[in-house]
Amino acid sequence: KHLKPVKKKGKVKIVSVFSKMLSMVHKVDYSIEDRKGKVLVNRCCINRKYEDEVLEALDRCYKMGIMVSDRVGFEHRGDRLIMSTICSSTVDGILIKHGIPVIPYCGGILELSKDRFIEIISYDGTSLDPHEIFLNRVDGENTVLSGVRKAPMVGREKLIEIVKYLNWKGIYKVGKPNNDVCGVKVEKNMFGYICFGGMNPFAILKSRGIPVEVSALHGVVEYSELIPVEELV
Amino acid sequence: KHLKPVKKKGKVKIVSVFSKMLSMVHKVDYSIEDRKGKVLVNRCCINRKYEDEVLEALDRCYKMGIMVSDRVGFEHRGDRLIMSTICSSTVDGILIKHGIPVIPYCGGILELSKDRFIEIISYDGTSLDPHEIFLNRVDGENTVLSGVRKAPMVGREKLIEIVKYLNWKGIYKVGKPNNDVCGVKVEKNMFGYICFGGMNPFAILKSRGIPVEVSALHGVVEYSELIPVEELV
Repeated sequence: KHLKPVKKKGKVKIVSVFSKMLSMVHKVDYSIEDRKGKVLVNRCCINRKYEDEVLEALDRCYKMGIMVSDRVGFEHRGDRLIMSTICSSTVDGILIKHGIPVIPYCGGILELSKDRFIEIISYDGTSLDPHEIFLNRVDGENTVLSGVRKAPMVGREKLIEIVKYLNWKGIYKVGKPNNDVCGVKVEKNMFGYICFGGMNPFAILKSRGIPVEVSALHGVVEYSELIPVEELV
Repeated sequence: KHLKPVKKKGKVKIVSVFSKMLSMVHKVDYSIEDRKGKVLVNRCCINRKYEDEVLEALDRCYKMGIMVSDRVGFEHRGDRLIMSTICSSTVDGILIKHGIPVIPYCGGILELSKDRFIEIISYDGTSLDPHEIFLNRVDGENTVLSGVRKAPMVGREKLIEIVKYLNWKGIYKVGKPNNDVCGVKVEKNMFGYICFGGMNPFAILKSRGIPVEVSALHGVVEYSELIPVEELV
């Protein structure tokens, strides 16, 4: 697993989630044209007695557009339900494969009514996934899990093109070059873009007091193995 | 308060704890020779019925050496007890006043038995204090709140000199130049040093299920207004 510390001269070095993300995004090979290929998912285990609540949470996030794409994994295993949602890092992977060098910057809580981040945690220099920390601090209505990436200005037009072609829910905003985006600082010659976090459905369940076991950036699956939310609910 | 977002062109910009720390450390003017001056404190409000537990937590941290200096603030206000502990950023402030350009890097959980960080959160690009996030994830025995700073190699000898002269509990380790420190990456021409977090006593109380209201990097007080732990317990 990518969070296992790297041995260095017999000493254990702590790995940042930034490094983990960069190594995972390279496994993405989703083809927009063929609508197939490998994508990254977050995973949530929950008792299957909460199946109705799960479907409701997925439906809500889908209708609000606060999840990434419309595909989910939904498996029964004994008395448990395993949900998978596409991780926003998948979009980074698709963009990188198209030659746009995106840099993950931070994960945080976006307040929709204010179009502003109210909390952020840097990916670089941090060992935990920020969305796992913020999971019980969002309501999935006005406050949602979101992430910021930055890319060089020159890639902006192409990024917008690819995002349009991709046609997935979940990309919230592409910032202007040299401009802050939703209150997050962006350096000169860069622009920022914001994706909703794939774990918003899990956050909604957690906000209702339902026990969930969550694993951010859990692994790689084939897109074709996932089900459209509309078919599920 | 320093966490109030800075208005920029009518839009609200999120402020990182890194910026907050850098602006606060400049208020430190503690004189090692005179043993007086301004220091930075963390604050904790607790119901005064827990006074015994508070004294026990302070005593334990003091004996283990996992708090910064031996001074605390201890005030009664109605049915509440207000504890203040010296914040590790005070040490940064003292070093900076002596001409050593320290850079706060991350806050995290240090596992003492392994002499390694098991979790870290970057200060830069993060809006919350990492120790507030980790407050209920340490036991104050084997896992403790700690922070990492970095400084240019050239300042290392002087730093060690000042830290010796200061003679406060709380400085855990000064790393070798160009070497990682307790598993945290350190760039070329830099060295890292580790301080225990001032909030370890608050974490111990919280780990016992005692309700605490905590404010990291709360403000500035006169060192002489604080009381030695040994006098208190």
